[in-house]
Order: sequence, then C-alpha cells, then structure tokens
Amino acid sequence: MNHLQTKTIDLRKGQPEAKQKEILDYFEKTWEIDEKLYTQLKSDEVFYHRGDPLRHVLIFYLGHTAVFFINKLLLAKLIDTRINPEFESMFAIGVDEMSWDDLNEKHYNWPSVDAVRDYRNKAKQVVTDVIHQAPLTLPITWDDPFWIIMMGIEHERIHLETSSVLIRQLPLEEVVSGLFGKICNEYGAAPQNELRPVSGATITLGKPFDHSLYGWDNEYGNYVEKVADFKASQMLVSNGEYFHFILDGGYHTQSYWTEEGWNWRTYKQAQMPLFWRSDGETYRLRLVAEEIAMPWNWPVEVNYLEAKAFCNWKSAKEGKSFRLPTEAEWIRLEDLCQVPDELEWHVAPGNINLEHVASPCPVDRFRMGDFYDVIGNVWQWTETPISGYPGFKVHLMYDDFSTPTFDGKHNLIKGGSWISTGNEATRHARYAFRRHFYQHAGFRYVESETPLVIDNDEYETDVEVANSCETNWGDTFATAPNFSQQIAQIIVEKLRKQTIRRVLDLNANTGRLAFELAAHFPDITALDFSARFIRMPIQLQEKGFMRYIVKDEGELVFYRDVVLSSTELDKGKNNILFMQADANNLKAIYSGYDLIIVSNLLEELRNPVLFLQHIHERVNEQGWLIITSTYEWSEQQTNRESWPGGFKQDGESVTSFEGIQAILDKHFTLEEPRFDIPLILRKSSRLTEQRLAEVSVWQKKQ
Amino acid sequence: MNHLQTKTIDLRKGQPEAKQKEILDYFEKTWEIDEKLYTQLKSDEVFYHRGDPLRHVLIFYLGHTAVFFINKLLLAKLIDTRINPEFESMFAIGVDEMSWDDLNEKHYNWPSVDAVRDYRNKAKQVVTDVIHQAPLTLPITWDDPFWIIMMGIEHERIHLETSSVLIRQLPLEEVVSGLFGKICNEYGAAPQNELRPVSGATITLGKPFDHSLYGWDNEYGNYVEKVADFKASQMLVSNGEYFHFILDGGYHTQSYWTEEGWNWRTYKQAQMPLFWRSDGETYRLRLVAEEIAMPWNWPVEVNYLEAKAFCNWKSAKEGKSFRLPTEAEWIRLEDLCQVPDELEWHVAPGNINLEHVASPCPVDRFRMGDFYDVIGNVWQWTETPISGYPGFKVHLMYDDFSTPTFDGKHNLIKGGSWISTGNEATRHARYAFRRHFYQHAGFRYVESETPLVIDNDEYETDVEVANSCETNWGDTFATAPNFSQQIAQIIVEKLRKQTIRRVLDLNANTGRLAFELAAHFPDITALDFSARFIRMPIQLQEKGFMRYIVKDEGELVFYRDVVLSSTELDKGKNNILFMQADANNLKAIYSGYDLIIVSNLLEELRNPVLFLQHIHERVNEQGWLIITSTYEWSEQQTNRESWPGGFKQDGESVTSFEGIQAILDKHFTLEEPRFDIPLILRKSSRLTEQRLAEVSVWQKKQ
Repeated sequence: MNHLQTKTIDLRKGQPEAKQKEILDYFEKTWEIDEKLYTQLKSDEVFYHRGDPLRHVLIFYLGHTAVFFINKLLLAKLIDTRINPEFESMFAIGVDEMSWDDLNEKHYNWPSVDAVRDYRNKAKQVVTDVIHQAPLTLPITWDDPFWIIMMGIEHERIHLETSSVLIRQLPLEEVVSGLFGKICNEYGAAPQNELRPVSGATITLGKPFDHSLYGWDNEYGNYVEKVADFKASQMLVSNGEYFHFILDGGYHTQSYWTEEGWNWRTYKQAQMPLFWRSDGETYRLRLVAEEIAMPWNWPVEVNYLEAKAFCNWKSAKEGKSFRLPTEAEWIRLEDLCQVPDELEWHVAPGNINLEHVASPCPVDRFRMGDFYDVIGNVWQWTETPISGYPGFKVHLMYDDFSTPTFDGKHNLIKGGSWISTGNEATRHARYAFRRHFYQHAGFRYVESETPLVIDNDEYETDVEVANSCETNWGDTFATAPNFSQQIAQIIVEKLRKQTIRRVLDLNANTGRLAFELAAHFPDITALDFSARFIRMPIQLQEKGFMRYIVKDEGELVFYRDVVLSSTELDKGKNNILFMQADANNLKAIYSGYDLIIVSNLLEELRNPVLFLQHIHERVNEQGWLIITSTYEWSEQQTNRESWPGGFKQDGESVTSFEGIQAILDKHFTLEEPRFDIPLILRKSSRLTEQRLAEVSVWQKKQ
Repeated sequence: MNHLQTKTIDLRKGQPEAKQKEILDYFEKTWEIDEKLYTQLKSDEVFYHRGDPLRHVLIFYLGHTAVFFINKLLLAKLIDTRINPEFESMFAIGVDEMSWDDLNEKHYNWPSVDAVRDYRNKAKQVVTDVIHQAPLTLPITWDDPFWIIMMGIEHERIHLETSSVLIRQLPLEEVVSGLFGKICNEYGAAPQNELRPVSGATITLGKPFDHSLYGWDNEYGNYVEKVADFKASQMLVSNGEYFHFILDGGYHTQSYWTEEGWNWRTYKQAQMPLFWRSDGETYRLRLVAEEIAMPWNWPVEVNYLEAKAFCNWKSAKEGKSFRLPTEAEWIRLEDLCQVPDELEWHVAPGNINLEHVASPCPVDRFRMGDFYDVIGNVWQWTETPISGYPGFKVHLMYDDFSTPTFDGKHNLIKGGSWISTGNEATRHARYAFRRHFYQHAGFRYVESETPLVIDNDEYETDVEVANSCETNWGDTFATAPNFSQQIAQIIVEKLRKQTIRRVLDLNANTGRLAFELAAHFPDITALDFSARFIRMPIQLQEKGFMRYIVKDEGELVFYRDVVLSSTELDKGKNNILFMQADANNLKAIYSGYDLIIVSNLLEELRNPVLFLQHIHERVNEQGWLIITSTYEWSEQQTNRESWPGGFKQDGESVTSFEGIQAILDKHFTLEEPRFDIPLILRKSSRLTEQRLAEVSVWQKKQ
C-alpha cells in the first residue's frame, strides 16, 4: 500500500506543469486505491448485495465515483460528450438518505460489473485527458477547471471510506481479508482513561477563502466562538470502557438515551455496537474484511446516539456533566495539542491517511500533547449539527453537497479515521452524518458545566420571510437602491440638525431600517407584528448572521448568508431593541419618541384610521412622523370602513393620502413635497414585484 | 319667464371680460330659474316629501345643486374652505339608483328649508366671487377654472328638468300651478301619424374636443356608423296613437314586452303611462303642477320599456318591423332635417329651452323638414344604451358622471324636452336613464329591416384581462418599452431577409403582438386558450376600439380606451385570424407555419414537455420558432413531471432552458445568444410586477 500513499495537493505553490503532474498522480492513485478497496469482495456477485438496507448495492459505488467525475466535468463544460447517459443517470445519486434518493431496487436494472469496469476505464481516460489539456494557472481557485478535478478526486476519497463501512456490513463470508493493507495486531486490556483540563479560549472557526488546500464549501467562512474551560478524556473511549455501559444495562435504560436515541435503539433492538459480535460470553469485533477477538484497548465505534447515551450514563453514575465535545471544543483541543496539518507532517502523527494500519489501533498508541488520538484512529462525534459558517457560499458545481445536511439532523464528526485521506485528513475537514449513522467513528467525552447551546442555523425557507430578507439584505440581484437604506439616508439628512434620541420603527420586518438608523441614533425601538419576521433581525443582532433561501426557477434555489459585520451595520446594533408588538394595540411604554417611522405598515393594519388618530400620543412635541405607504388596501387585511382613503365619498374621490392628511392635520404639519421610493420584492430570478411607496414627513405641532 | 331665457355659452369666441359677465349672467339666471321651480310646492313641508320612492325627498335637490358647486370648486382647488361640511356631505350624492346612493331616510336628518336657502345664498356668493376672481382665458377648455363653473351651471340645469319630473310625481294637492311659465293650451284629437323614408348614410358621432360649447365627457370622441335606409314616424307618438295600444290590451299581453319590460309592468302593475289618470271612462293627464283633460294630440310620455312594447305591438299588428331609432338613426334624422343647433337659432325651432311653453304641446305643432319635433317637446327614447365613444376620456373633476351608466342598462334619450335648456338643448347632448325611468320623454318609431345590433361597450373589469390590456396596450404608466412591441421588432429585424408568410402566435392574449406583426407579415394566426382574453383583440379588430378599467388605489380606478387607428396598428388588422385554441391540443389545421411564436406560454401549459416534443410538426422546414419564457412553473398549472427543467435530476440542477434545449435539439438549431426582455404587469398605480422573459430563437433543421 505504501506506493499509494498520498497527500492532498497544495493549490497555491509550485509551477503549473509540475502541478499538473502532481494532480494527475494524485488522481491515478486515488483511482487505484478506490478499486483496490473492492478487491475485498469475494466475487463480482457480491457487488449486487447491500451492506446497509438504507444504502445502494455496492455496484452503485463502483460506478458512482467515475460517473461523478463525468457529470461534474460536463456541468463545468470541461467536456461536452457523455460516455454513457444511462450510467450517468443510474450512478448519479443515492448517497445520503435524501428524499430524492431512489433506493427502490426494482427501479434499477444494474449492469454487469465488467460493464462498470469498462465504464471506469473510459472515464479514467477522459479525466486524464482533461488533466492534460485543461489550462492550469496557480493558484487554483473555486472557479478553475482543476478545482473540479480536485472535487472529483476528493469525492472519490470520501467514498473510499464510506464504501469501506458498507463492506464492513457485508456478511463475513462475502469478503476476503488481507487485500487492503494490514490490520493492527496490537490487542490488550483497555487502558485507564482520565480527564485532563483544557483551558478555554476564543477561537475562530472556518477556512479562509484563500487557503492553499481544496475544501468543500461548508469549510469556508468565519465564525468566532468563546470556548469555556472544560475537561476532556485523554483517550477515545475504548471498547473496554464502553463495555461497562453495556454491562450496566445501558442499552436497556431509557433514561440514558435521548428520545431520538431511544427510538433508534428500540427500532433496531440494539444490544451493543453494530460491529460487535457476541455469543453471550465472548465478544468479537468485525473489521472491514475479518472478525477478530474483541480488542478492548481499541476505540469503540458507535453512532452519536450511543455515544450520547454513554455520556448520560456516566453523568448519572458520577453525578457530573459528561457530554461529547462541540466542534469548537474539538478545535480548541487540537490547537492546544499543536497537531500538525496534513501537509505539515512527515509521518502522520496518528492512525490516519492509511499511513500506519488498515484498521483502528489501541487508544493509547498515538499521543499528541497531553492527549491521544486528537486526530486519526476513528472519527469523533461532536455535539454540533453541521451548518455553514457565517459567509457560507454554495459551490455551484456541487450545490447539494452541504446544504441538505444543514437541517439540524447531521452532526459533525472530526479528526478522521485510519482510512481518512486527502481532504478528510485535513484540519478543516467537516463531515457530518445523521446521528444514527455508522462510520469508522467513536468518541471522546468531555466534562463541562457550561450549558450546551445548539444553534439551529437552518436556512430560512418561509417564502415571505426569506423574500423580505432578500429585499432588505440581498444585493445580488438589486436593480434599484435598497429601500430601507434610502429611507434611512433621507431621515439622517433631513433630521441632521434636530435632536433625535428615541426612534420607533413600527414595521421592523427583517430589520434593515433599524440597523441603518442605529448607526446614527442612540435608541431605536423596532417592532414587528410577526415573530416570524422579527426573529431574523434578532438573530442578526445576537449571532451576527442569518441565512435564507431564495427561489431561482422551479425548484432550484439560491442560498444566502448575511453577515452583519460585512455590511458595516454592526456598529450600532446594541442601540436597537427588537420586540414583537401590534401597532394597532401598542403598549403604553412605546411612547415619548422623537421620531416614529411607519414604513409600509398602514396597509398591513386592521385599522389604519384608528392608528393614525392616536399616533400623535406617542410622538414628542415637535417630534417627527414619517410614513411610507403604497396605499394597497385589501379587505382581507383591513376592514373597508378603516381605509383612510382610496374610495369615493360623497361622490368625490378621496385618495389615501387625502384621508391620511385629514386625520393627521390636527396634530401634525406636513412637510412638502412628498416623494416616491420603490421597494423591489424579488420572488424568483425572473419575477419581481415593485411597490412604489409614497413618503410623507410630518412634524408634530406644539 | 322671458327674462330668464338663456343659451349655453360659446367658450371660444369673445373677449375675456365680456365672457366673464356672460357666464355670471348665465349662472345667476340658472340659479334663479332653479329656485323658481320650487315655488310650485304648496308649502315648505312638501320639501320633505318624495316624488319617487327611488329618489330623495325634494329638499335634497334644493341643496344638491348648490353643494355640487362648492364640492367641485374645492376639488378643483378654486376655493379652499367649506361653507358647511355636514351639508356638503349630506347633499352630495343620490341622483341615480347607484349602489353608493344611500336613500334610507333614517340615515338623514334633513335641515330646515330656511337653512338650505341660507346655504344656497352663501354658495351663490362664493360662486359669484370665483367668477369674478378666477382667471379667464379663451378658449375655455377642460382644465380651466371656468369649465368647472360651467359644469356647475349645466349640472343645475339638468336638475331643473329632473326635479320637475319629481314634482310632477307629487300629489296634486301639494303643488301650485301657474308659477313656472304657461302651459300649452292647444288640445285636440291626435293627428294621423305616417312613416316617412330616411335615406341611409355613413355618419360620424361624437363631439370634437375643440368644440365651442361645454360638454359632458361622454359627448366627446369619434365613432363612425353606417346607417341603412329606414322609415321614421313623422311625428312623435301621441297620447291618442298610444291609446290604441292600451285599448288593444297592450299592458296585459306579455308577448309585446321584453323580459325586463314585463318584469317592470308586473311589479308596478302598470295599466297606462305614469302621468295618465283615468276614472275608467275619461282620461286626464298630470302635468308638473296641474291635471288637465287628456290632450290626445300631445306626445305620450312613457319609459323605454313601454315604448318598446308599443313598437312590438305595432309590429305584430302590421307584420312589419317597428322599433325605436338608434342613436345614429336619430342623428341621421336630425342631419336630414337640418335642425339648427342651440347657438344657431334665433327662436327655438321646437318646444325646447323654455322658449315656447312650460309643458308639452301638440305633436304636429313644430315641423322640421319632413318631420315634426326632431328636437323638443319631449325627449325621445332610443334603442342605444349609452357608452363612451372610442377615445372617451373621463373628466377627472366629475369622474362618476358617465362611467357608472356605461353598463348596458342606461338607454340614451335624444332631442330634449320643453324644459331642456343649456347643454341639454344642444345637438351633442347625450343623456341616458335606466329603461324603466320616467323623464319628460316619449318616442318616435322607425320601421327598418336592418337587424338591431346592440353593442355592449362596457369597460372590461375582469382584473386579469384588464391588466393584460394595460400591459399590452397601455402606455400611460409605461416605465419600460412594450414587451410585444420589442418582440415584434426583434422578429422583423431578424427575419427581414427570410420569406415569412404564415405566422402563428400561440399566446395571443390581448393581441398586441399579432397586431404588431400584422403590419409586416401577410398571414397571422393568433390563438389563445381563453375566450376571456381573445375577445378583446377581436373587438379591436372588428370595432376598432376596446375599453378596460385599471386600478389606481383602493377602489379608485382609471378608465382606458384603446383606439386601434390612433396606434397605427390597424393597417394590417385583416391579416390576423384570432381564434380560441388549446396549444396543448391543437387542431391539425394549425400547421405549415414559417414562424411560430411561443410567448410566455410554456409556463401556462398543462404539459410544456409534450408541447415542445411536437411543435416541430407545425413549423415548415427551415422555419422559425421563437420562445419567450419566465420559466415560472407552478404545480397548479403544470404537473411537476411535465416541467422541462427547474429541478434537480441525478443530483444536478437542470435549468428550464437546458430541459427545453434537450427536447428541441433534435429538430431545431438554437441561435445564440439568448437574451432577456422584461414584461411589466401593472396591478395598481403603486404595484407592478416585472416578468423577465428569456427569448430563444430556433430554426428548424432541414
């Protein structure tokens, strides 16, 4: 296997020609190692068996890594001809348990293994040609052809690992051992695990966009988190340590399990980890292609749900708070142990990158600082569901790699396993699986009194809210100046010489106007009728970012991340109080304002007339009232009798503005002239609505 | 009464100062004559009685003509203060049986007659001041202050007549005779009526916008109609002539009546005209303030429904086709008899303008050419429901004068009566009332074999159709070039050197594209799925104009008239065949086209994929296919499986265009580049939708 050892490529340093050769070599070795994996199947017939009822038969994965290359090269227009359209559809998708994965075998008529091998050979030639012919300039960045080549290679490396897990789930008699590297031969009793302190720190997560290594889109961005002091187990939990949990009835005590965990355990009738075997007295462990006597000093391999149950059991036993580390805690541990990154090591500091053995090894074999196995051996489950970091952008050539997992149901695993290579073995690697999923993964526990807060950073999909976010915060498609920005500019210019302290924004919506004003005025109250809407600016204020989905065409969407700090609007953010409130039934506390802004609100009220009749009560003397409205009254929203205008009265047209003026005249002086500002609401890439709002400025009489 | 004789004012000729005096004099006399009318009420108490259960009590009309002045002067900003806001609401509306007329007396607390008289005096002074102070330049046109003054005066003159009808409906003991001019004292047997021929001609209806007399908005425009030869009764139908119909059981024979007429007769249990009185043997006639022995030689006064029943009775008796004249036939008669217009006569040629008597007079008293009473005596019902002429524009200072009557339910009366003065006595006067309504109106019958075609020129109010009309034909609010016009330009430029004869527009909509193309190509088939839509361009093609309503704000609307000839698009109109058809299920005849245009249609089809798979069958070899689409698929419209794209397939995004191209590639060559054109859909004055359509051009392979 040694001749197949590789590292992922530095895409910044070096000479183009040499880099081309380096990438070709990386590609060829990846291809070879992938095919070598399947030599462990006893016969071609086994390709039509399933390792996991929720996964495809193995032939799919043999074809998939080749087909992926071709589909992406086509998409990137690096090639223009298909090799085999049927294969390129059949082998395209079916990796995660996604709704669009069709795993009904009746829908497939799998080809022969030889046909797939033949296809692979052709595909390999196509990729080789592309590597020879595509223009290579350094650095290689997101939009370069060679980024797509790297994408195909790193994709194949992921499947090297996930397919090995599927093979590990085949019946023993269907596999042949000894053909994919040597397994570890060090067995023994479990060593005593101990907690070691980890000092807290403020750490920055996220890979810079100019990083020298290939990365998946979810790795990029910038996220700062304060990690409190905690203690972590020195070693990964071994089979021996975990056995105590089993012996203590852990798999039969519901209280140790999360609800999701207990549902899984009950459904699966799990009694022990998936790869454990027992005759009731002795225990054995299934590896990829063999079964061995239980190596008690190797790390236990479990899913998140089991790892979590173990922690809860341990907490209950010891009266302390044990759990898995968060992503940030894991990074903190890695920092502290000064673990070198893939390109920095001469020999891997842990059981990783296929550099040592082709299986796990004892949990006390690879020491890094005060701890063992900070990387390598088996992946380590974390408490953190994956989501993009603030600033996350989808890579358009593989736009369903990450976002479908940003659903709160996929937890990050960190650190890599013995078979993690390429991107998987890098510091920034972020892979996530459903919590009941099996990989070559175990865990390290931490003890911490800091309450675990799991953010749900899902993309806002509520169409109205998301469209409002885009109107307020999106600029990608902007064809006209931002509405809230314009209103804010007008206010700031007009009231420059006034003493304005307290400002009330009565239609906060997704918050843009409030943030704009907060840079200029010290005290902003921003109210919205709907919690659906107001939670977005609150999230911006608290977390500094928010995310939403906007429609492209049909079912295709764009993912948007708004990072407050990148808009320069975070300066005054603490000047704003966002609250939910009904402008037609305001609490008394919302009074005494120097400026009240009623922005496109009247048309949303049940009773705009009543609102207008009383709004003077909340404005300070000589204070200001700014109204913007499209006068788009609808009877669903506003009783016909409560429209201020837009109808005939005594035979004459009463415009909405005339009606408003008639009410406000008693307490306010109108500043002429009024003017119009358009608000653009984007509903899809080809459908936008323009609302032309009239702006009127009123000053309260003395 | 002689000192109160007036004529409406020439608004073009003369000197400003003299004109001001002339108008003041006209105003003062109008005011005086109006008040004189009410001297016929026996006491002030009678002001609180109703002449007609569907009209207000009389006090309303005393106040109304004054309040109207003040409301209009305010609206026109000629004054800025109200005299009495309560009066100016209470006396504002309630003239026709409109949905917004509140005739529930419980909702009114009518003031004293003295208070109203006091108000009138104040109002008179305000108007007098305005006449003195407002700037007067000649000619006086629609937008001038003095147009509003004239509007108030002519409005008062209308009510002079309508109030006289209401007084005529009061109990005899509540009125005093002899105080409003002398009634005719010529009574006798009915003269023998005869039919006289009228030669047909092509006549032009509509008052030019630069006419020298004040006119209501419905008088203006331009409408050409071909009038066939017909015969008309020499005289109006007299009481004596009509009596035969009664004696013959006319009021009890349903077959003589229209459905609407019979419903009215049954509801009212009518046995004879409203103003006839009978003790079973003798007949008397109620005038405004007295009852006289039936003057058999005076014109009968009936509503349209009774007049029509008489014609049907007469047709049945004589086996000929009798009916009322159309508006155009009446004009033709007037032309033929060379009846002078109001400013042209020294003495009125008929019983009109209060110049002769204060009642009807014998039908054989005023001869004009071969006929009698072409104008004057009593109004003459026509078969024509009122609508605006092509080019009609609403006068914004009185925008509910005409349009509410353009509903097919208000028939025109022509010719004026003994009490018609001012505008009412002019050639162009067009007043219309519900067909069951009573005025000082009777009729002349015509005999004609030409089938009566009643156009329904209502304003299109179907929101989708009207908005489409505005998008295709409106330019008032246009903020971007017209979509259809742009497509047509592109087609004409691109295919300039091609031989294009037969063109198929598969989404005719409201027809703009077809009319644009018809100027360049000899044979256009324009199909639309919906009859709602296709009838609009068909109307344009057949009648040369169409009308629709677009939303301003709330319930306020704009009225739009499209006159094809004013757009220069009528040249090729006969090149177009408009038909209703389903593009997803086209008849075989729609084949053999040199050019097919699929404009924003795919997204409306049940099955765009099926459509695309077969469209090549309808294009000639080397012919063209032009597709524009927003790719806005909705599952309501199009089954998800029939979307050409806009979804993920095998893990990759398939755009709509890619899906379309995959289908068309076999038979068509794509012309690059594609490009975008925006289509602006105006939903109200402040709400527009922009649909950005992608245009792709395809040529059929040989």
